[in-house]
Amino acid sequence: MLELNKCKEFFEQQDHYAKHSGIEIVKFEPGYAKVQMPIKDFHLNGVKIVHGGAIFTLADYAFGIASNSRGQIAVSINASISYIKAVSSGTLLAEAKEVSLEARLSNYIINITNEQNQLIAVFHGTAYRKKDYWQWADK
Amino acid sequence: MLELNKCKEFFEQQDHYAKHSGIEIVKFEPGYAKVQMPIKDFHLNGVKIVHGGAIFTLADYAFGIASNSRGQIAVSINASISYIKAVSSGTLLAEAKEVSLEARLSNYIINITNEQNQLIAVFHGTAYRKKDYWQWADK
Amino acid sequence: MLELNKCKEFFEQQDHYAKHSGIEIVKFEPGYAKVQMPIKDFHLNGVKIVHGGAIFTLADYAFGIASNSRGQIAVSINASISYIKAVSSGTLLAEAKEVSLEARLSNYIINITNEQNQLIAVFHGTAYRKKDYWQWADK
Amino acid sequence: MLELNKCKEFFEQQDHYAKHSGIEIVKFEPGYAKVQMPIKDFHLNGVKIVHGGAIFTLADYAFGIASNSRGQIAVSINASISYIKAVSSGTLLAEAKEVSLEARLSNYIINITNEQNQLIAVFHGTAYRKKDYWQWADK
Repeated sequence: MLELNKCKEFFEQQDHYAKHSGIEIVKFEPGYAKVQMPIKDFHLNGVKIVHGGAIFTLADYAFGIASNSRGQIAVSINASISYIKAVSSGTLLAEAKEVSLEARLSNYIINITNEQNQLIAVFHGTAYRKKDYWQWADK
Repeated sequence: MLELNKCKEFFEQQDHYAKHSGIEIVKFEPGYAKVQMPIKDFHLNGVKIVHGGAIFTLADYAFGIASNSRGQIAVSINASISYIKAVSSGTLLAEAKEVSLEARLSNYIINITNEQNQLIAVFHGTAYRKKDYWQWADK
Repeated sequence: MLELNKCKEFFEQQDHYAKHSGIEIVKFEPGYAKVQMPIKDFHLNGVKIVHGGAIFTLADYAFGIASNSRGQIAVSINASISYIKAVSSGTLLAEAKEVSLEARLSNYIINITNEQNQLIAVFHGTAYRKKDYWQWADK
Repeated sequence: MLELNKCKEFFEQQDHYAKHSGIEIVKFEPGYAKVQMPIKDFHLNGVKIVHGGAIFTLADYAFGIASNSRGQIAVSINASISYIKAVSSGTLLAEAKEVSLEARLSNYIINITNEQNQLIAVFHGTAYRKKDYWQWADK
């Protein structure tokens, strides 16, 4: 049985850059993750909107959790993002959905939205699934 | 004449997320930028390697400077990244080169390398060039 | 009023490479398109599976129709594709859905499936919307 | 020893969609390929410029040859393309360069140019390297 709580604990405590970026886990299930980022001054770029790197990091974190949530270690090999709307305040949400799961590769689409549920960016990630399992995964 | 020093000053002082991520400008010219990120604990993810979001942010910063360095305001509309090698210490460098410059769109390839000049990731970004110019750009 | 039949006629008769590749329009609406490609020998690559270029062309055609279906001329500026499952016979379908529509840019996710509705590939495209309208678009 | 002539013969004779699209191999070496496509009427789209799918197919063919040229079977898992300049006549060239080669994954940047050496599009592809070798590869 896969222990989701241990997975959550692991990501919350061990992912330093997500913590440094103020990102929190909202919800996750096997193949799915939702995370959020309350916008702070340090997320902004030179024109006072949220930096593309911060939006990417938010989506990438959802992608990382969703792709690892089944217990098998998965690493990102490719990711692409399209920016739709600029945003400067409020909270951003990223929701990762698994669109494919094969032996070695899996694919995820991540929608990044604001609190009004407007689409801010779309992210697409491909993960490579290793043969090893996480310690927290009780195969 | 474009005043590069004002552009540099602007990006160094006003880009909060780049500052928050410990990224520094090494060099830039019209259509070109090189930035660096000495790896700290806060850059790491759960498996003690630099987070994909931190690598993306480094490359995105080089992309942002290169695409704005001509004085015209440019915003990122699409970016894709492929991760090649994991890295956990030392300093990462990102070098942005302009591969195209048209009236409304420009494209950049950014190589992310470690200090041994090994390729860590490849980034490709497309920018949309607005009609407006930066204040620091003395057209 | 936008005349969809004229749009369909235009794409069916004037898009030579889609015709050359044996692709047909199944259905379309503003911001949406579904096309199909019955697999022939000429679609295959050296290992007897459908060539990545043929799958891309199928998806790109759906993307092109969906992004132009509102009457405003739109051109593709970026596209990315992830291949999930190899396929060698039957009919492939591509369905384009609009995920964003702004003044200058619009984004589409295209799912490529086989007749059993299994996902074969995922395509993401960004279009640039010009100021001009199609002749068939009766603004 | 890898027999490049057999590899060339294989791709030229067995890749049906490349043949159907009028694409020819110009040159290749391990990790490198150059192919060309003299533009014909059937390559054009509704606005009389070369269809994005045809440009992609040209680049994808160079990518496929370059990624398989070492003898190990490689399949495309992700590809992205940015279109820079429209083109309607002459010959298009695509040149694939290997930017990384790891145990399981390799990456290629492909420049698509016209005869005046102007950049028409940029393509980035990631290949997954299987454990099997081509028959023509005399390991």
